[in-house]
Amino acid sequence: MFTPNKIAVIADPKVEQLFPHYLDSIYPKIPKIIFRIDAQEQNKSIEQAAFLWQQLLDHQLDKQSLIINWGGGIISDLGGFVASTFKRGIPFINVPTSLLGMIDAAIGGKNGINLNQVKNSVGTINKAKDVIIDFRFLETLPQEQLLNGFGELVKYALIGSKSLWNEIKNMQSIHFQDIKKEWIDFCIDFKKEVVDRDLYDLSTRRILNFGHTLGHAIESSLMSTEKPILHGYAVAMGCVAEANLSWQHGFLSEAEYCEIKNVIFRLFDGESLWKAIHWATTVKFCQYDKKNESGRINITMLEGIGKATPNHFVDAAEIKFF
Amino acid sequence: MFTPNKIAVIADPKVEQLFPHYLDSIYPKIPKIIFRIDAQEQNKSIEQAAFLWQQLLDHQLDKQSLIINWGGGIISDLGGFVASTFKRGIPFINVPTSLLGMIDAAIGGKNGINLNQVKNSVGTINKAKDVIIDFRFLETLPQEQLLNGFGELVKYALIGSKSLWNEIKNMQSIHFQDIKKEWIDFCIDFKKEVVDRDLYDLSTRRILNFGHTLGHAIESSLMSTEKPILHGYAVAMGCVAEANLSWQHGFLSEAEYCEIKNVIFRLFDGESLWKAIHWATTVKFCQYDKKNESGRINITMLEGIGKATPNHFVDAAEIKFF
Repeated sequence: MFTPNKIAVIADPKVEQLFPHYLDSIYPKIPKIIFRIDAQEQNKSIEQAAFLWQQLLDHQLDKQSLIINWGGGIISDLGGFVASTFKRGIPFINVPTSLLGMIDAAIGGKNGINLNQVKNSVGTINKAKDVIIDFRFLETLPQEQLLNGFGELVKYALIGSKSLWNEIKNMQSIHFQDIKKEWIDFCIDFKKEVVDRDLYDLSTRRILNFGHTLGHAIESSLMSTEKPILHGYAVAMGCVAEANLSWQHGFLSEAEYCEIKNVIFRLFDGESLWKAIHWATTVKFCQYDKKNESGRINITMLEGIGKATPNHFVDAAEIKFF
Repeated sequence: MFTPNKIAVIADPKVEQLFPHYLDSIYPKIPKIIFRIDAQEQNKSIEQAAFLWQQLLDHQLDKQSLIINWGGGIISDLGGFVASTFKRGIPFINVPTSLLGMIDAAIGGKNGINLNQVKNSVGTINKAKDVIIDFRFLETLPQEQLLNGFGELVKYALIGSKSLWNEIKNMQSIHFQDIKKEWIDFCIDFKKEVVDRDLYDLSTRRILNFGHTLGHAIESSLMSTEKPILHGYAVAMGCVAEANLSWQHGFLSEAEYCEIKNVIFRLFDGESLWKAIHWATTVKFCQYDKKNESGRINITMLEGIGKATPNHFVDAAEIKFF
């Protein structure tokens, strides 16, 4: 096993407070330098990256050292980017503590910071040396964070498992005790398999992007308003919007689209979220999307529930709903 | 051939002035957005990277676009980093215009920016899609820039070609007309071959680092003084220092070390450069070197002229000369 000479931990202070002795069980004999970063989207910034790079330099970390990203997706996105670019890349592992982190952000190698409001405009693709999944973290997750991850879980069902969709579609609301470990395992395995086939996101990996072109744009457009929206909620709304486009483009039946919309609206209080979306601004943010080609907007479509088809292009003018 | 939808050029304004129509010959029909960056080491900064990222976002460049880094090593280091991290990586080519750029910086995929004074502390390893070598740029190169590249050329001779060393060791001074194209070709081919065997710099690529552990530290230590030193001059001094260590460690004979020192001192006005080095500060900067392991300093040694052996470690205390 790799024995690092030094360890720096980029930690969500809330998690550290709840599990103060947790890190002692990982690499027990090596002292850890801890940097605490609040899990707020605004902290995925150039300023925070610059602060961390300077700290790593001052503490003389090198390619024999290790960075542990201990927290949710914000921590692993920021910490993964910093580790991947410090001294042209030093080893890092992710210890995701949120449902969102476990099933999505911590795996697959994508990292990034935001540029002003544009999500993940700067980053690399570089896999963590290891990802430690520990379900105990989920027990203390606030309800809002559980739903934040559930937005991604719904996406996995829609793109990859009709049977998972059938299990969740009759739920009235989401509670920790209702979430089955095998659902989480399914999402992790599904993502790992897709990423192994296309790490650099050139073709098949883009199915994972279902709900995200619109989802990211919704998230960005609300980021600096009085009512910002969490990533998973925005992805849930993005799934409705992109299911609508899939129906309009003839990939999905009207009945399937309505079922998707009804389930997501029920679980996420979608009526009020949907009303808060400012579509003109959302479309503007779509135009910054990383997958666009020559101004056309890249959308992953659903071909029925449980099956996705990537790399379809729509014009900005098509993005208006209801 | 890849036809980009947009082209952004990161250009040294001095080169643009001298060759105003040059870019018309590359991708003639596609309009180019030009960002002019003075070729100063201070511009390899987070602030410049942030400026360029924002510009690329505002101009809506995407993965079908192209960045052309047109200038010396400073331009390709900065532009390569920006391209490699913007939207998690968009294509770029390098058009090196300096001797240093052609034989070293523009090839091999290493890019980076400086953190305060520490050179290339942040960067990635990601090869350019293409590197265009055009000797015409060298005709207008100032003498100081010619020597800047010649420092690297001397290094290639010492690590890889006794016959090249024998050709240059009797030169009294360096002039454009004395530099043979086959020397440049040798350096480029040598580096490409080494890089192909070890892109991520884990083993054999480190022979390219001869002269650079000390060279980078000398350069950094003088960067914000009244008399900063150009990279190639610092590498030339680093070659003398590391040849000295190679002799002290029994890899190199005293006669070989003295020959190396005499030739480099003659060509680079080494006596006065050497006197300007502040060794205590230089040693301090050695401790930030990317290849260090657990505080020990990694040096590539010479085993005779024309042959290098990487990954030897010395203590900071050993770094004192004459």
